[in-house]
Amino acid sequence: MANIAFFGLGNMGAPMAINLIQAGHSVKVFDLFPEAIDKVVKAGGSTCSDPKEVARGADIVVSMLPAGLHVKALYIEDTAIIDVLSPECLVIDSSTIDAESAQYTAKCLAEKGIDFIDAPVSGGVAGATAGTLSFMVGGSDSAFDKAKPILEVMGKNIFHAGDVGAGQIAKVCNNMLLSVLMVGTSEALQLGIANGLEPAKLSEIMSKSSGSNWTLDVYNPCPDVMTGVPSSNNYEGGFMTNLMVKDLGLALDTAVKSNASTPMGALTRNLYSLHQKAGNGTKDFSSIFTAFSQKNR
Amino acid sequence: MANIAFFGLGNMGAPMAINLIQAGHSVKVFDLFPEAIDKVVKAGGSTCSDPKEVARGADIVVSMLPAGLHVKALYIEDTAIIDVLSPECLVIDSSTIDAESAQYTAKCLAEKGIDFIDAPVSGGVAGATAGTLSFMVGGSDSAFDKAKPILEVMGKNIFHAGDVGAGQIAKVCNNMLLSVLMVGTSEALQLGIANGLEPAKLSEIMSKSSGSNWTLDVYNPCPDVMTGVPSSNNYEGGFMTNLMVKDLGLALDTAVKSNASTPMGALTRNLYSLHQKAGNGTKDFSSIFTAFSQKNR
Amino acid sequence: MANIAFFGLGNMGAPMAINLIQAGHSVKVFDLFPEAIDKVVKAGGSTCSDPKEVARGADIVVSMLPAGLHVKALYIEDTAIIDVLSPECLVIDSSTIDAESAQYTAKCLAEKGIDFIDAPVSGGVAGATAGTLSFMVGGSDSAFDKAKPILEVMGKNIFHAGDVGAGQIAKVCNNMLLSVLMVGTSEALQLGIANGLEPAKLSEIMSKSSGSNWTLDVYNPCPDVMTGVPSSNNYEGGFMTNLMVKDLGLALDTAVKSNASTPMGALTRNLYSLHQKAGNGTKDFSSIFTAFSQKNR
Amino acid sequence: MANIAFFGLGNMGAPMAINLIQAGHSVKVFDLFPEAIDKVVKAGGSTCSDPKEVARGADIVVSMLPAGLHVKALYIEDTAIIDVLSPECLVIDSSTIDAESAQYTAKCLAEKGIDFIDAPVSGGVAGATAGTLSFMVGGSDSAFDKAKPILEVMGKNIFHAGDVGAGQIAKVCNNMLLSVLMVGTSEALQLGIANGLEPAKLSEIMSKSSGSNWTLDVYNPCPDVMTGVPSSNNYEGGFMTNLMVKDLGLALDTAVKSNASTPMGALTRNLYSLHQKAGNGTKDFSSIFTAFSQKNR
Repeated sequence: MANIAFFGLGNMGAPMAINLIQAGHSVKVFDLFPEAIDKVVKAGGSTCSDPKEVARGADIVVSMLPAGLHVKALYIEDTAIIDVLSPECLVIDSSTIDAESAQYTAKCLAEKGIDFIDAPVSGGVAGATAGTLSFMVGGSDSAFDKAKPILEVMGKNIFHAGDVGAGQIAKVCNNMLLSVLMVGTSEALQLGIANGLEPAKLSEIMSKSSGSNWTLDVYNPCPDVMTGVPSSNNYEGGFMTNLMVKDLGLALDTAVKSNASTPMGALTRNLYSLHQKAGNGTKDFSSIFTAFSQKNR
Repeated sequence: MANIAFFGLGNMGAPMAINLIQAGHSVKVFDLFPEAIDKVVKAGGSTCSDPKEVARGADIVVSMLPAGLHVKALYIEDTAIIDVLSPECLVIDSSTIDAESAQYTAKCLAEKGIDFIDAPVSGGVAGATAGTLSFMVGGSDSAFDKAKPILEVMGKNIFHAGDVGAGQIAKVCNNMLLSVLMVGTSEALQLGIANGLEPAKLSEIMSKSSGSNWTLDVYNPCPDVMTGVPSSNNYEGGFMTNLMVKDLGLALDTAVKSNASTPMGALTRNLYSLHQKAGNGTKDFSSIFTAFSQKNR
Repeated sequence: MANIAFFGLGNMGAPMAINLIQAGHSVKVFDLFPEAIDKVVKAGGSTCSDPKEVARGADIVVSMLPAGLHVKALYIEDTAIIDVLSPECLVIDSSTIDAESAQYTAKCLAEKGIDFIDAPVSGGVAGATAGTLSFMVGGSDSAFDKAKPILEVMGKNIFHAGDVGAGQIAKVCNNMLLSVLMVGTSEALQLGIANGLEPAKLSEIMSKSSGSNWTLDVYNPCPDVMTGVPSSNNYEGGFMTNLMVKDLGLALDTAVKSNASTPMGALTRNLYSLHQKAGNGTKDFSSIFTAFSQKNR
Repeated sequence: MANIAFFGLGNMGAPMAINLIQAGHSVKVFDLFPEAIDKVVKAGGSTCSDPKEVARGADIVVSMLPAGLHVKALYIEDTAIIDVLSPECLVIDSSTIDAESAQYTAKCLAEKGIDFIDAPVSGGVAGATAGTLSFMVGGSDSAFDKAKPILEVMGKNIFHAGDVGAGQIAKVCNNMLLSVLMVGTSEALQLGIANGLEPAKLSEIMSKSSGSNWTLDVYNPCPDVMTGVPSSNNYEGGFMTNLMVKDLGLALDTAVKSNASTPMGALTRNLYSLHQKAGNGTKDFSSIFTAFSQKNR
């Protein structure tokens, strides 16, 4: 069993840390919000008021933070736990951030001999709690191999996308594509509805045809076509519009920096940003379906 | 076994007619091109120089024509085979046309008591030859039931989408969504490639994640990720860009007429139209992938 | 002075007819709504319950109707005033309709020797009342020359765009471009505002630079930058979103039929259609500015 | 007359520096390419192999560099001429860069009491040579007043957009809008051409109507409608597609950072990026017109 330091105990981080505890690891945790810490300590974790003391002696550090600047601050700049990490330590950053921040952090850590992988996740709070997340990993083969048993405690599908930063790129590509699937599926269903088709019937037909895709098949955005999805629960739960806007911002930044052309991803970023401005930021991202509804006319 | 009259023996129609012949039906055929007729006659069909005589006495009429005006001309206006069809006859129009033309034709035929279904297909020339097409059918329950055994000779999946015209609407929705999946998948793969990811690896990751969709999973647009798809055959075969532009034109017409909003479908129609203008009209529609390539810069 | 028959007395048609009356012409009018007729009769027009009698003996027929089907119905099909028009008569259709309907009507009239021009207008109710409309005319040189003095009673700028239908095409191109200017200007102003710029200052800078355009310079969509425009009057008056959606539908139909690529016009059609669905159909089209506002977040 | 240090003698910087020399100022220049320096020295400038010596004693520093990192490197980081600048010095950065880099540089300089304005330009090489550039300035009132006489040597329109960074924001907004005008105008003209209209006639009509905009009125993208514009010179000269892609990348970054929605600007960024990939990077940005041409079909 490993000594694990865990930073960032939000909606995703807390259940991930608890899964590590329940697998028998010794887990020290830190967060800026004391209440967040309490919950994990109750589940068997330990803590300390000084983040450097949380990190000291760790075999593995896991972080789950909001943005690149927080990751750089934790490891290298402000908090600088790099000062107390041993060269044998492995750093697993599961935050969804820009690839450049991941690469910068990895490079600084490598100068002290510390391994780093970027390992952003998909699967949401439900997946974090159930331990069924998908991890998209960037890093060396040896770091990946070392991380794998730890990641398997928290997730089900562990993908090795390439070198450091590749995990972030893979996630950005996947989520940009996901947004395209969702908006395209919403449009197609609404076009059918506007012309008299039953959405459940049309969904079935397209799912068995070349229109088949994840959002249509298992996350249908039209209310009451499926059970157990946000669209059948007033678009509550799931993956918030606000988070999709954030991920699509990362996708566009990545596209601009690499001179890639992403007309569809750029359009979904703007449709979601307009959807957010219309007051739907905290609803599940499948609620874009309602923007196409004839009802309001 | 039925007496079937078959009109329109192009790349799709000819193998469909031959499958009906091989199933034991008595099939009389007609086309404006004599060579098209020859091939089907050699396979056991009969013909006649007068299209009305081809239609006379048929239990079932099947048509596979380019556009709504041809369908109206055949049944109602110029050729007007309505004059020789008996009230017991069932008309199956498998052309991909606008729903309004289908509804107009159905209405005229209904005045003589003749049943009509619109039954556009997907699956391409390969599916037509193998008898594995998908049919999206609009029409009454009784007409659908009557047509089903005939359609099953030519296809594998037979969907009943709703009343007359619903088959065309379902096809238009599906193909608009298909175009969105294809362009979105192409963008996402190219964004990954521009940032150093292996397309096969990225495809595998997204296929097992929420980016999963038909174009990524079974029709990958990146050369050499899959075998047996157009992208690995210089974008030959498959579904031509020209045909996708035609289908997306139908989708936009349908959206405008029904006041539906389809920003993504409108964008793919224009990206495919630009792709066509750049000289790619006869290539498979997955060749849109190449427009996003960094190579030409 | 001419004998003029005028069909269609809506918000635009009524003041146009009254201007003809006030210029001294003898004007007989018709509309499906009696109240619409009353107003123009009070201004000096005459009427008759039978539209054919309104048309009989006219030197000039002017029509201002909602769509192509109404124009075809009036002249050729249902009402068929073609039956009573003399070959010396000139028909001026000022409706905004599809070019095909204009060309069909012109062809039918030409068989009886009757001249036809399509002459859609811009300038709104204010321009119709003040007699300062712009006319975009399609038709022969001789028909244009014959129509010009009549059009000059109702308008200020009389453009000869080309043969029959060209007036409609010119209007569709202009209004599609107008929508692009408006949405682009709204975006640019909101981007500046989100980054701390004063909208009046930014408007002045761009108006004197390469961002200069009609919507920025004389119809600014940001409240309180200009006086006397809809944005400074709660987006009331002006050119309704509903009408812009209609014109953009015509533009897309025209693009699909002529295989033109219009990605920007297709996007504005959809943004305006979504804006309409969000409840802004009767507001001026510059209200699209509010969709980009940060306020609602 | 002032002692001016000028950094960056590219296509824009060199004629700007020469205009300062010809107005009687004492101008010391620096560039990484000796040939660039030679030309300006021949026109009466002086130079020095050490950039710090170029800057020492300057009343005014002007810089014209490719990107934010170069500006930060020159003033603060690598070259760090901040070390030799006196507190009375005024820094004028005319580079087109991100507002954040401008604000960072200004803040560092302010700590030594040095005034900074960001003053990006529009008007191209022709405007730089003729001294008719437009400057969009961000900075304090006093810095603006101090800079104005210097800027008036190089330009004609000097706009004060707001505080430090506001010049960059104004430029990004204007150029994003410019790209929208250009693509929208190209589409509208091509839609007319595809339907038989003369582009010169359609241009005239729209210029006098609500489609009026800078690209249509004075920079028409259709060959042979105007003389003296890039479209009539094989799209040579003018403002390169590569530079428009760069500016639109800045616009998208700005939009993402400020959570602004810019669907039209995002689409033009991608259409220009695709145009670049198709081999048109060094052509004038009005060459996007050719992408919409029916010719290639």
